[in-house]
Amino acid sequence: MLRVGVIGYGYWGPNIVRNFNLTDGACVVAVCDKNEETLKKLAVTNPEIRLCNDSSQVLEAVDIDVVAIVTPVSAHYKLAKTALKNRKHVFVEKPFTATSAQALDLIETAEKANLKIMVDHTFLFTGAVRLIKKLIGEGELGDIYYYDSIRVNLGLFQHDVNVVWDLAPHDFSIMRYLINERPVAINAWGSSHINKMEDIAYVTVHFPSSKIAHFSVNWLSPVKVRTTLIGGEKKMLVWNDVIADDKIKIYDKGVEVQNRQGIYDLLVSYRSGDMWAPKVEQTEALLLECRHFVDCIENNLTPINNAYCGLEVVQMLEACDISLRNKGELVSIENLSLTSSSAFGAVDEEI
Amino acid sequence: MLRVGVIGYGYWGPNIVRNFNLTDGACVVAVCDKNEETLKKLAVTNPEIRLCNDSSQVLEAVDIDVVAIVTPVSAHYKLAKTALKNRKHVFVEKPFTATSAQALDLIETAEKANLKIMVDHTFLFTGAVRLIKKLIGEGELGDIYYYDSIRVNLGLFQHDVNVVWDLAPHDFSIMRYLINERPVAINAWGSSHINKMEDIAYVTVHFPSSKIAHFSVNWLSPVKVRTTLIGGEKKMLVWNDVIADDKIKIYDKGVEVQNRQGIYDLLVSYRSGDMWAPKVEQTEALLLECRHFVDCIENNLTPINNAYCGLEVVQMLEACDISLRNKGELVSIENLSLTSSSAFGAVDEEI
Amino acid sequence: MLRVGVIGYGYWGPNIVRNFNLTDGACVVAVCDKNEETLKKLAVTNPEIRLCNDSSQVLEAVDIDVVAIVTPVSAHYKLAKTALKNRKHVFVEKPFTATSAQALDLIETAEKANLKIMVDHTFLFTGAVRLIKKLIGEGELGDIYYYDSIRVNLGLFQHDVNVVWDLAPHDFSIMRYLINERPVAINAWGSSHINKMEDIAYVTVHFPSSKIAHFSVNWLSPVKVRTTLIGGEKKMLVWNDVIADDKIKIYDKGVEVQNRQGIYDLLVSYRSGDMWAPKVEQTEALLLECRHFVDCIENNLTPINNAYCGLEVVQMLEACDISLRNKGELVSIENLSLTSSSAFGAVDEEI
Amino acid sequence: MLRVGVIGYGYWGPNIVRNFNLTDGACVVAVCDKNEETLKKLAVTNPEIRLCNDSSQVLEAVDIDVVAIVTPVSAHYKLAKTALKNRKHVFVEKPFTATSAQALDLIETAEKANLKIMVDHTFLFTGAVRLIKKLIGEGELGDIYYYDSIRVNLGLFQHDVNVVWDLAPHDFSIMRYLINERPVAINAWGSSHINKMEDIAYVTVHFPSSKIAHFSVNWLSPVKVRTTLIGGEKKMLVWNDVIADDKIKIYDKGVEVQNRQGIYDLLVSYRSGDMWAPKVEQTEALLLECRHFVDCIENNLTPINNAYCGLEVVQMLEACDISLRNKGELVSIENLSLTSSSAFGAVDEEI
Repeated sequence: MLRVGVIGYGYWGPNIVRNFNLTDGACVVAVCDKNEETLKKLAVTNPEIRLCNDSSQVLEAVDIDVVAIVTPVSAHYKLAKTALKNRKHVFVEKPFTATSAQALDLIETAEKANLKIMVDHTFLFTGAVRLIKKLIGEGELGDIYYYDSIRVNLGLFQHDVNVVWDLAPHDFSIMRYLINERPVAINAWGSSHINKMEDIAYVTVHFPSSKIAHFSVNWLSPVKVRTTLIGGEKKMLVWNDVIADDKIKIYDKGVEVQNRQGIYDLLVSYRSGDMWAPKVEQTEALLLECRHFVDCIENNLTPINNAYCGLEVVQMLEACDISLRNKGELVSIENLSLTSSSAFGAVDEEI
Repeated sequence: MLRVGVIGYGYWGPNIVRNFNLTDGACVVAVCDKNEETLKKLAVTNPEIRLCNDSSQVLEAVDIDVVAIVTPVSAHYKLAKTALKNRKHVFVEKPFTATSAQALDLIETAEKANLKIMVDHTFLFTGAVRLIKKLIGEGELGDIYYYDSIRVNLGLFQHDVNVVWDLAPHDFSIMRYLINERPVAINAWGSSHINKMEDIAYVTVHFPSSKIAHFSVNWLSPVKVRTTLIGGEKKMLVWNDVIADDKIKIYDKGVEVQNRQGIYDLLVSYRSGDMWAPKVEQTEALLLECRHFVDCIENNLTPINNAYCGLEVVQMLEACDISLRNKGELVSIENLSLTSSSAFGAVDEEI
Repeated sequence: MLRVGVIGYGYWGPNIVRNFNLTDGACVVAVCDKNEETLKKLAVTNPEIRLCNDSSQVLEAVDIDVVAIVTPVSAHYKLAKTALKNRKHVFVEKPFTATSAQALDLIETAEKANLKIMVDHTFLFTGAVRLIKKLIGEGELGDIYYYDSIRVNLGLFQHDVNVVWDLAPHDFSIMRYLINERPVAINAWGSSHINKMEDIAYVTVHFPSSKIAHFSVNWLSPVKVRTTLIGGEKKMLVWNDVIADDKIKIYDKGVEVQNRQGIYDLLVSYRSGDMWAPKVEQTEALLLECRHFVDCIENNLTPINNAYCGLEVVQMLEACDISLRNKGELVSIENLSLTSSSAFGAVDEEI
Repeated sequence: MLRVGVIGYGYWGPNIVRNFNLTDGACVVAVCDKNEETLKKLAVTNPEIRLCNDSSQVLEAVDIDVVAIVTPVSAHYKLAKTALKNRKHVFVEKPFTATSAQALDLIETAEKANLKIMVDHTFLFTGAVRLIKKLIGEGELGDIYYYDSIRVNLGLFQHDVNVVWDLAPHDFSIMRYLINERPVAINAWGSSHINKMEDIAYVTVHFPSSKIAHFSVNWLSPVKVRTTLIGGEKKMLVWNDVIADDKIKIYDKGVEVQNRQGIYDLLVSYRSGDMWAPKVEQTEALLLECRHFVDCIENNLTPINNAYCGLEVVQMLEACDISLRNKGELVSIENLSLTSSSAFGAVDEEI
């Protein structure tokens, strides 16, 4: 039985507690939060859980095997580092860390101690993403031409990160999981209207092939849109995550080229066939994720949402920030996730 | 009565003929096309119209006052130049010309001869655009934060221009008409999958203020989307042009900032009120446009879709092409539509 | 070459003329309408067509093989009867006639003279209906449980018939074509708000089996709805005719009963699988219908929308009227379409 | 502080417990259910609540003021009767009782003892229904022409009641609340496919005026629909309860009659104006309902969803059953909710 200690009991914390408690082989033994009111409610519904205001009471507890860090990103590194030093496995909210240097340091620390890190990219465990992964894997779409996501709504405004850090981690982690090719560069454009942070941004991701990915993220949209288009050589897919039924539609549509002899001789025709909406599993993604973490710890496996996944997402977010600051400059991410000794040396102990 | 000669009777030509014939004060007297089959059909339905295969029979006809050029863009300049030299007013398809130098030359020629040029940016005459223009003009949305358009579908592949030249002229002309601020720079990213021309592209338009515009154009989408979001300080607007009813929805939603003392003290709240879908006029846009042209000629007025409008669209398209060729480089368009004597001098007679 | 004379050139007439002219083996030689203005337009676009104001000039013309009757229903019987007497085949708008007695008389007249009657139930020739017919025929849905149609919009108010006679003929003819079981009774409820004619009505159709059909027709709906649900033992189908794409969706959903030993022991489970939207052909229905009529005449075949089909629709409409007048009384239609000599005798010559 | 005892802790019971506990002036002190497993979970989350398997331990408890009956309808009468005899106020699930005689008996019992009964027609407390009530009350729609509801989905199959008793109580209670006119008769048609209970039914409700209401309820629909159209003389309203935003749309559309001199002279025109989607409050309906009940008890007020409301719904359900058994016979409900001494005398003590 893995004993879990949770640090941070705000918006997402209750879901973490509930799902680890529903997971065979895991139970939550302690929760830490600075808000006394929040903890009072937990005391009523879960009197068996130890409550505290000081994270060291979780990080140093001898009866805790896993620390779940459910705080703002700025606190992730120190909490995770301390947890690892105290020989705890770490489950940490996305984005993994505030810098890729922090992420690399945590990876090195965990690997040396043979401990597991899981970054909470919950979307990878949804029925929708698992189904798309399976469809692409089976070649249903053919070669992927583009990945185009729109993730816009009114708020939630965060004060400490811009809209890219708030919304794009979902898209980066999903794209990375689905697309079997490493991006080489990113450019991003944004604009700020309410405070200094960008509240609307457009990100383009470039690949060695002609594949292209694009993300539109926006905190100022009157309507909530969560739509991803994936265009393939054979078929095309639309994933609309704000509707209850038929979230994923696969179109047997495409372009057929008969003749490539010359631009003006090009015979292009369009294929328009059936649409198919496969059933999407409704199992709670977070529960599957908790189970996967327990399974990885018990059987020494690597989580699909491991620290390298988290690192790559942070690298892409950093590239976005550089590009945003430099008028959309193309920022190379060729060394994406390549870890070297020298890289670790760059980590500032003061981070 | 303005006598109209039409050059080009392909996909769009019949609409031009029909609508000029429905316009008080105008009638089509001649149509030129190289395709004999097409002309035969016209001979049956409109036996009063003179048919020919040689454009000079339209361009030089003494009984013709207006030449409507409904050909691919590569032919626009020479036909329009000749028409103007023969003292005809010119109605020309969008995009206006293949280069801004051509556009500037036509403008100078027309102005010297006191002739009118109208570029067929039909969308400006739709009930939807006219209504949005009115709403923005009355301050209904407040200051505009962003303009975000998605214009994607499967095909129509053109062989001689990329997806930006095919689809974005609509967006550029509409944005220019609605937004009362001149853009200063553009960057564009695209990718080609079927032939050498970009079949998917993303364009960002930058303004002196924090305003931002973004266009997603795509020939490889399984679904047809024509959605424009316009976010304002007061209200936000969604224009969905593929639905029959309630095309335009105005949301009384927004962000309210109570305190700007510091980033962390910022009190941001969200306002969520009613939605309102004003009735959109259904009058045929092209008919209104033809009437407007006749009115401008008869009363010596400047069309809202005049040659400078066409020129600016071409300038933005050129900026896109430069940016596409230079990995998304930010391309300045500061001198947008500024015409000077020296500028005219730059026009190559060989164009 | 079948020479067609058209009587009535109002809203639908131009479509009839255009499509018969596009049909191999047919051409329109004469059109009759009382409205001179309407005919003038036709004179411009189709100068080869003979125009007249007196129907006898069509009905008695020796060079006419087929009379297409595109008038209000009250005029159908006399025109059709005269056409048949003059040995013309008859193409007639729906509903076939104002009474079933009239329909029976026309059927007898046509059969004696070996002439064809086609009633213009255009929907039977749409890609949607033909596809549903095929799917049901192949057993894709299994036994049909119910047929439920909603056909509502604002207007078009007719002055001489109620909303059932205006809108339900579509549903009756489609249901009759798709459902391989004869209805035995009908009841209908309605209400009038604007004039004495019912402007909203609900019709239930009863079958010998537990199958049930229901039609909601309404002239006072703010939204246009054209949705048909067909529930089957195996699968269920939704046909939404007001959307451009994916009009027909087939749901692999259903109820599975494991145990019928007793009501309280009944184990009912729900199956929820994929959804599938087969491609629907876009060919113009009216053109297919005209071709079918020419084919039936040339090869002595029976149209799928023959006079018996028209008769049954009229019988169902009559049953609705009786039920509406008698507070929803269940009206038997057991003898639906059974024609006997005595039935013919009942036809009043003065009808 | 009103002390609440809850009988029945199945699907809906946890919501009742949670919301009464969130209501100022109320707290749940005891819960009764036959299922030990269910109670165990409650013991963990709410250790302060007394648990039992025998309803008498709630019905007879001296420290309980209110009994909430959250059982199948067949048990409502006996539990409510006993609760009232023990001087408890009663909160009871819909439908109120299995027969109107039972309902009348409970009403008489409660009135004699000066106790309150509230029937859990939760929908009356939703933001949507409260908003529609307000709009109709302010005359926004004008005279109501019709009320048309579609409430269909796949399952939930109940074994002891048909689809009318399962789904229509919502519609009957909402219609009764919104429409300021008493219905006089009902007819219903249905069909059974899975067991002996109707799984699909159509109900028409008749009024003294030309107003008409219609309900389509169906357990065998592949799609979930919750759409109500309310057509008024001035405006028309569509309430779509399965979408998250813009649930209620008000159309400034209608029919205008200029001339009523004769049917054929009738000049009918259509008005098509703006659509307006007012913001719908998102407060939890059940919490508002619990507060309303506490308020009614404390201040001796009559709940909007009182026992007469519950009675009328049961009377309409009974009328549906009679009509279903008699081939759609029109069943009078003229004496709807009229209670007299003699009526009470008819109640069998054995019910």
